[in-house]
Amino acid sequence: MTNSNQYQPNPELDLMFERVVDVPRELVWTAWTTPEQLKQWFTPVPWKTVDCEIDLRAGGIFSTVMRSPEGQDFPNIGCYLEVVNNEKLVWTNALEPGFRPANQSGGSAEHPCAEFALTAVISLAAHTNGTKYTALVMHADKEARVKHEQMGFHEGWEAALDQLVTMIKKM
Amino acid sequence: MTNSNQYQPNPELDLMFERVVDVPRELVWTAWTTPEQLKQWFTPVPWKTVDCEIDLRAGGIFSTVMRSPEGQDFPNIGCYLEVVNNEKLVWTNALEPGFRPANQSGGSAEHPCAEFALTAVISLAAHTNGTKYTALVMHADKEARVKHEQMGFHEGWEAALDQLVTMIKKM
Repeated sequence: MTNSNQYQPNPELDLMFERVVDVPRELVWTAWTTPEQLKQWFTPVPWKTVDCEIDLRAGGIFSTVMRSPEGQDFPNIGCYLEVVNNEKLVWTNALEPGFRPANQSGGSAEHPCAEFALTAVISLAAHTNGTKYTALVMHADKEARVKHEQMGFHEGWEAALDQLVTMIKKM
Repeated sequence: MTNSNQYQPNPELDLMFERVVDVPRELVWTAWTTPEQLKQWFTPVPWKTVDCEIDLRAGGIFSTVMRSPEGQDFPNIGCYLEVVNNEKLVWTNALEPGFRPANQSGGSAEHPCAEFALTAVISLAAHTNGTKYTALVMHADKEARVKHEQMGFHEGWEAALDQLVTMIKKM
């Protein structure tokens, strides 16, 4: 089996984030795939990621628990779909670990992240200045894309990546 | 990346179908993965499968169009999640090709199949009498499992497998 999926963004449905960061891609990969590291950068402050579980294979768990500044916890559970070391990481919340369909009716106003399904594709490429970092987030429909954008997708991913780079440089 | 997922059935949420058939597993695999063959056995008569598209890799399309005895067409679209030649075939309708989350609101009374998400795992094992054929269908919740069971899951899979075996023996 080859895993040569080509992810073709659809501007109506998808959100993209791309930046060159001056850290090696192997360290960016480790930041994304090691729970103790991910918890340090994944959620823009003052939010925190207080728990993370990773089983790095297609069908394996990717779960996080985000804590709001008020102390409320928001669990997110999904699974990986494609894992190419140091290059590509794909996961979704439309499927639970083991590929079971997720119960999407679990969303609520208090937990907006669970209101829509998404699949995220993180791509890392070597770059003369470090690493070209690309995130593609796919949604089922335009409504979900708009909602995610209005929730602050771009600012959130920008801030999280800043935190990731800062963490790597401190190490 | 290894694809050694272990699929653990949950009786509350899942439906299982298992039978030993007296045909070689390579031919059962081909019947599942070749559109011209699949169209011959996939839908218990008097229903027909009038179209089928297969891109046999994780993220690749698996789509069918079923035609009712009254001539109404019901398209189903999904993607493969795991492909192990002659052994295991996993797909879902919770994701579209390329792993985009599916729009699950598309279901209707006229198209009950689209009313719930499912992930199917077809496992084939060599057996002294031919092939041990196991189908596991996972759902997000008990309601979907019950609905699928009441739609005639067991009778349908039994009849389709009969048609598959008959087709192979005629070839």
